[in-house]
Amino acid sequence: MSRVFNFGAGPAALPEEVLRQAAEEMLDWQGSGMSVMEMSHRGKEFMGIAAQAEADLRELLAVPANYKILFMQGGAIALNAIIPMNLLGDKKTADYVITGSWTVKSYKEAKKYCAPHIAAGSLEGPFFAVPPAPTFQLSADPAYLFICTNETIDGVEFHELPDMASIGRPDLPLVADLSSNILSRPIDVSKYGLIFGGAQKNIGPAGLTLAIIRDDLLDRALPVCPSAFEFKTVAAFDSMYNTPPTYSIYIASLVFQWLKRQGGLAAMEARNIAKAELLYGYLDSTDFYATKVEKAFRSRMNVPFFLKDESLNEAFLAGAKEAGLLQLKGHKSVGGMRASIYNAMPLAGVQALVGYMQEFERAYG
Amino acid sequence: MSRVFNFGAGPAALPEEVLRQAAEEMLDWQGSGMSVMEMSHRGKEFMGIAAQAEADLRELLAVPANYKILFMQGGAIALNAIIPMNLLGDKKTADYVITGSWTVKSYKEAKKYCAPHIAAGSLEGPFFAVPPAPTFQLSADPAYLFICTNETIDGVEFHELPDMASIGRPDLPLVADLSSNILSRPIDVSKYGLIFGGAQKNIGPAGLTLAIIRDDLLDRALPVCPSAFEFKTVAAFDSMYNTPPTYSIYIASLVFQWLKRQGGLAAMEARNIAKAELLYGYLDSTDFYATKVEKAFRSRMNVPFFLKDESLNEAFLAGAKEAGLLQLKGHKSVGGMRASIYNAMPLAGVQALVGYMQEFERAYG
Repeated sequence: MSRVFNFGAGPAALPEEVLRQAAEEMLDWQGSGMSVMEMSHRGKEFMGIAAQAEADLRELLAVPANYKILFMQGGAIALNAIIPMNLLGDKKTADYVITGSWTVKSYKEAKKYCAPHIAAGSLEGPFFAVPPAPTFQLSADPAYLFICTNETIDGVEFHELPDMASIGRPDLPLVADLSSNILSRPIDVSKYGLIFGGAQKNIGPAGLTLAIIRDDLLDRALPVCPSAFEFKTVAAFDSMYNTPPTYSIYIASLVFQWLKRQGGLAAMEARNIAKAELLYGYLDSTDFYATKVEKAFRSRMNVPFFLKDESLNEAFLAGAKEAGLLQLKGHKSVGGMRASIYNAMPLAGVQALVGYMQEFERAYG
Repeated sequence: MSRVFNFGAGPAALPEEVLRQAAEEMLDWQGSGMSVMEMSHRGKEFMGIAAQAEADLRELLAVPANYKILFMQGGAIALNAIIPMNLLGDKKTADYVITGSWTVKSYKEAKKYCAPHIAAGSLEGPFFAVPPAPTFQLSADPAYLFICTNETIDGVEFHELPDMASIGRPDLPLVADLSSNILSRPIDVSKYGLIFGGAQKNIGPAGLTLAIIRDDLLDRALPVCPSAFEFKTVAAFDSMYNTPPTYSIYIASLVFQWLKRQGGLAAMEARNIAKAELLYGYLDSTDFYATKVEKAFRSRMNVPFFLKDESLNEAFLAGAKEAGLLQLKGHKSVGGMRASIYNAMPLAGVQALVGYMQEFERAYG
């Protein structure tokens, strides 16, 4: 089969240029005689790759100088524990805004380390909107306020951040899981205390986990936090306290370079808006398909949608596969379909999807 | 540069056949139209790769049915915390045999969770031998006995396991860090409660971490153990509670298939003995170089050696590099040189190294 359009939610499609370069360099990276997989993490070749990756990411996201970029492991699910372990300090609670399946998980995991408080939303859902900041009910003395800027499963995205000053807590660190929309648009890193994400959606291979943390938050870890996951230690060793996932960092570095060639995050945002408008526009134009998320909070990255007649689901997926449109089945907790259209999904992929959906509607509508 | 002989301690050389196959399949794995990096970990393609990897590893190591194979993240340094978090249960101590830099680290990290006890060896070294089991001074009620079967930095290897029955504790679980000698020789998994290792020496890319655990030990985790690192949870979800490092598991699967084509672990052991005998034999034959580890405990995987005249170190390394013999510099805590000769290092690489060492001796001796 030739290359398909892969709408998987993560691990997800990577830019073809990145994969081509990785294939070409697999046996001999730039005349070193070694694969990047075979290089010592402390050798000058890999140190150069890691430094370039960090510099490019810092440039792409305009990361201020008082923030550390950490390359870690374990994905967002591990970070759900690692974050309270690192940020609670002497506080007994942390506040969570529940907007979907991922923040439910984050909240539940925090219970191992504190008595987390739900500032907005509910564990039961439904998850079709982001609660407005003025409705947040904060606890008296939380260590941080936790949000997920894009709920991969539910397709709910924050298009504006809660303004901590407007809710009367300008100093409360905002902690955000950006796993599924990082690098999809410019962000103002200075609004956050910590942002983090698994790499496997918009950055690179599964296993690499990114954290960007304001340096005054580095030294609040609980004694039970494993050294390998202590932000202060990871920062002090430039992400090499334990052996980092070197090959995944290399692939991420190729993705960062690709993003720069695309024109950076403003250009990516324009493309991502165009892709999302094309797909949502079509969904809004027909009764054959439906969406549930409120328009103002629709994710540009993950688009859950439903066939009105769900008995056609299998036929829809089978026809899509035949057309080279893969991994469109919705998450089991939501059902229906989901098209994940991250940075690496070209407009042509969304055009092909909409074309197929129209054709399917004509055949079965 | 053409492919070099890479004597790095880890991340380390991989079999060229494995890298070639990975390069060929990078854009389109077996007609799927996707890179393995792009596949959902829950899709049938990747589930098949992971199941085959587990089956091949189970066959290679003859893992008994009552042991679970877990694919995790964080490397041995993270496991140094994850193990006491998982195995202490209601015990207040665990016993450590100190044989080198790695067990020193493991012991120190355990202090976060209990009052670990040194059963043999000392934190200060020197690390030239494995203490005999009859000299172990066990504590009254430890959760486990911890060893490192091969000290990567010091070049000290257990060629026989401590017999738990002979030391009067047949039921005490033996926990072993096999990071740097796993798959280099057949082992009797049933002698261990838990074996674990970072992948980046004999298995695959850094970031993947293997644990093989007897199933009666799965349910002893402390409440502070992150869910993503709880052995019971990882086992219950077949290593997919969080997104696993999918591409690294794929590379590991190619290494396992390569090992089977080589004839399995008995054949690998014979080759590893031949490589080690060639190098140690030459080192023993000359006064120009020296080794420090006692003969009975010399590692077959990591061979630290010294030039008697250390002022020649830079010239030695420069000449080696010119000859395509890379990453021979010793660890900074030990000094001198170190040749890591894992499974993927062919005999020809050791022959080339010995040839170069002889030539260097002729030139400078």
